[in-house]
Amino acid sequence: MAAESMEQIVSLCKRRGFIFPGGEIYGGLQGTYDYGPLGVELKNNLKRLWWKHNVYERDDMEGIETALLTNRYVLRYSGHEQAFTDPLIDNRTNKKRHRFDHLLREQKPEVLAQLSRDFGLSEDSDDETVAAALLEDPKKAEQSLKAAKVVDPTDNKPGDWTEPRTFNLMFKTQVGPVADDESFAYLRPETAQGMFVNFKNVLDSTNRKLPFGIAQMGKSFRNEITPRNFLFRVRELEQMEIEYFVKPGEDERVHEEWIQDHMNWWVEEVGLDRDKLQLFEHVKLSHYSKRTVDILYKFPTLGFDELEGIANRTDWDLGSHSRDQQNLPLSDNTKEKALKNEHSVEKLTYFDHEEKKHIVPFVVEPAAGVDRGVLAALCEAYDEEALENGETRVVLRLKPALAPIKVAVLPLAKNKPDIVAKAKEIKRMIQAGSGMRAVYDDTAAIGRLYRRQDEAGTPFCVTVDYDTLGQSRDGSTDLLDTVTIRDRDTMKQERIAIKDLLPFLRERIGA
Amino acid sequence: MAAESMEQIVSLCKRRGFIFPGGEIYGGLQGTYDYGPLGVELKNNLKRLWWKHNVYERDDMEGIETALLTNRYVLRYSGHEQAFTDPLIDNRTNKKRHRFDHLLREQKPEVLAQLSRDFGLSEDSDDETVAAALLEDPKKAEQSLKAAKVVDPTDNKPGDWTEPRTFNLMFKTQVGPVADDESFAYLRPETAQGMFVNFKNVLDSTNRKLPFGIAQMGKSFRNEITPRNFLFRVRELEQMEIEYFVKPGEDERVHEEWIQDHMNWWVEEVGLDRDKLQLFEHVKLSHYSKRTVDILYKFPTLGFDELEGIANRTDWDLGSHSRDQQNLPLSDNTKEKALKNEHSVEKLTYFDHEEKKHIVPFVVEPAAGVDRGVLAALCEAYDEEALENGETRVVLRLKPALAPIKVAVLPLAKNKPDIVAKAKEIKRMIQAGSGMRAVYDDTAAIGRLYRRQDEAGTPFCVTVDYDTLGQSRDGSTDLLDTVTIRDRDTMKQERIAIKDLLPFLRERIGA
Repeated sequence: MAAESMEQIVSLCKRRGFIFPGGEIYGGLQGTYDYGPLGVELKNNLKRLWWKHNVYERDDMEGIETALLTNRYVLRYSGHEQAFTDPLIDNRTNKKRHRFDHLLREQKPEVLAQLSRDFGLSEDSDDETVAAALLEDPKKAEQSLKAAKVVDPTDNKPGDWTEPRTFNLMFKTQVGPVADDESFAYLRPETAQGMFVNFKNVLDSTNRKLPFGIAQMGKSFRNEITPRNFLFRVRELEQMEIEYFVKPGEDERVHEEWIQDHMNWWVEEVGLDRDKLQLFEHVKLSHYSKRTVDILYKFPTLGFDELEGIANRTDWDLGSHSRDQQNLPLSDNTKEKALKNEHSVEKLTYFDHEEKKHIVPFVVEPAAGVDRGVLAALCEAYDEEALENGETRVVLRLKPALAPIKVAVLPLAKNKPDIVAKAKEIKRMIQAGSGMRAVYDDTAAIGRLYRRQDEAGTPFCVTVDYDTLGQSRDGSTDLLDTVTIRDRDTMKQERIAIKDLLPFLRERIGA
Repeated sequence: MAAESMEQIVSLCKRRGFIFPGGEIYGGLQGTYDYGPLGVELKNNLKRLWWKHNVYERDDMEGIETALLTNRYVLRYSGHEQAFTDPLIDNRTNKKRHRFDHLLREQKPEVLAQLSRDFGLSEDSDDETVAAALLEDPKKAEQSLKAAKVVDPTDNKPGDWTEPRTFNLMFKTQVGPVADDESFAYLRPETAQGMFVNFKNVLDSTNRKLPFGIAQMGKSFRNEITPRNFLFRVRELEQMEIEYFVKPGEDERVHEEWIQDHMNWWVEEVGLDRDKLQLFEHVKLSHYSKRTVDILYKFPTLGFDELEGIANRTDWDLGSHSRDQQNLPLSDNTKEKALKNEHSVEKLTYFDHEEKKHIVPFVVEPAAGVDRGVLAALCEAYDEEALENGETRVVLRLKPALAPIKVAVLPLAKNKPDIVAKAKEIKRMIQAGSGMRAVYDDTAAIGRLYRRQDEAGTPFCVTVDYDTLGQSRDGSTDLLDTVTIRDRDTMKQERIAIKDLLPFLRERIGA
């Protein structure tokens, strides 16, 4: 039985050491999570699969890893200082703070209709449209909200509302010992900008020709007003992003190719069920986007939500970060909306040897969430299986490549030194011979150890017993130097010679 | 010829895409660096080696990865709010800011002697001792500095000095939309604390018995007053840390074991010259330390400096983060100096089943710098070799496991589609068959491509030519399906059948 609620996943994560809330012994730090012993392996395995698929197995990609502390001008000219905001409003009566558009979404239709009329909008306008209109005239908005008796959903009473306002979601920090308005940096809100501002550095050091991409994995930070839904809406997140640079005109075809390629990746390599994936076409586009398509996964409790966004960012970013923009061949949208750049010392252009001229490449960006990927993999793999004896086992049916532990080596009796020594020796042999993550565990009886490995998603358990030592009960030594190997999914055990273990595991796990 | 100056390394890093200054197109962000296409692979390879040695190949270690945004109480009770500071002073005349102890270090002996007398110290006191005494009474210090005519080394004139004061090196950031004194978090200054505060979580989810360790790799942040020396003194750094928990009384022996183990690791796995490594015994110890030993590497230009610090942190950290400390069996130093903990909800103790009582484990901490490790590996590998033809080549003699690229596959002629197709096919075959990082490059003539791979540290180049296609000039097809393989270090080339490539590379690279 698959996971029916996110609670089952959260509980497993804490119990088995996949994921813990951040700063728990001090009451937590909302919107942050710590990856435990199993979680860090699962996350790193997912990242490694992504890097292998997107960097190593292609001939047109370079990797990079840029600093998290980011020069403020990078995020001024990217548009984040202006646009990376959420609308906020406070209720003076109960001191509660709300995201303004979410507050409007929870009002009755007639309330929204009244606000729409006040601001000259059609009566069926949605919450985002109404919120945007009200933010244009906060004073008038305050009066309208009062007149319309907008209700606070936390206590179901009309609130005493402040003026709505925008709140920038970027974290700032003072850099260096002088506290003034100039000496701060942002924690990057996306890894993307580090790739754009290094476009020339990568080009010059690698001799790349269009089309080519830059890939990056790493942390980003968003000061969410209300972190929620476990790993889903957090303040510290990890991303896997690609900026793929093409000649203008090739962008639409390439965009479509990446959507298909990554849809297949989530199915074939991460193991997500294709029936639980959907594409979502954005109607309202960000200031930089020509088209954005999300890949959604159907999470328990949450329903369909975003795993990855794939945007056609046009020449927005390279254009925005270039000096002398007026002399560059930019697209209309970028020309019109990009802030005049008074700080960049570079033109982020590309010399097209065929056409003998400088161009500003277009960019297609597949941007996936690592934490959401981990969560989707866990949700997909989670299974509660009814056993013949009436008990239930929890088993994570992870793809072997994702499994935190590939093999657990278990001694049948932990008070028997010969068995323990042999088990540890086999663990080291597998570890050294294959590089596969192998562990030794003797902290419980064998049945319990199997259940633990099932919950961890370990594809195989190897058990060392008296037979292994040539001490079978019937006095025979036929089973000397053999072990049992147990399959996670079928729970079937077979006897195998120790010398055949490595080839067996290599074939079944594909390492 | 080895690197004679750090400048040679910095120049190679920028030219070949190992490391770029952060935010360069906007004039940089001091103390931050971006890892380029080659740098990110080198760094990840170093981290992978460390994780393999310290987590996978042992039976007593768990990995973890905790959030960078850190609950403020974690860093209050760790002692960082109080002690993670540098002393600062300003010169009103020229507006220059100095680290106070560094300023004193640059004064004439008679000036230091006069200040020492003023504060009742012996006349041969060192700069740190004098600085500490003066910071105790900043008003009196201001007068003494004036009377002693302390000189500003930037203009060699006596300065008009402010009172000296301490500056906390932790970055802070506002969390959530309410800007008040309570709603901030720190960017962690070390990965260590994330492991201490999760001690119980790890224990409960893994059933570990003492002794065992927790390992973590990741970013840390220090608001250095004067970042300098390339990757050495930076504001954003990456660490590889272990907290190894033992019963009190076993700490000294285990400390010594880790020092030896990691000294060997730097030599055997990273490839550093043992003669360029030294141990440094700390005389002045941090508030938490019983003994600290650094592993130093002899860098060009900088001389011997720290790669890794290995500290005996006693029960300081688990004790400091526990509630009800007065009832815990803590060591004298911790009992005396730890701040009374009014916020923790946990006792970070361990139930000793042999002695049937709760104890507070001691901790041994090997803490290495990833960036410094990368820099040491680059410095060690750098070689300028005079060739027979009078030219010089730069070659990075990196251990194959560290090399960013393991094999480059090069076509002898890029305008010959058959050769190009065969080369790309071989690249894919190596990549898929071994997981080793292989690249295809055709952006220059073959001699130049070899030089590029030498500078990148690529152990082997495979070249596809007419012979490979069975189109030898003498009309023979004897060399059909063979390629040349060139060794980075010897520059020797040999002819090898394509089908023998994978076994050859596996054996020589050890992947």
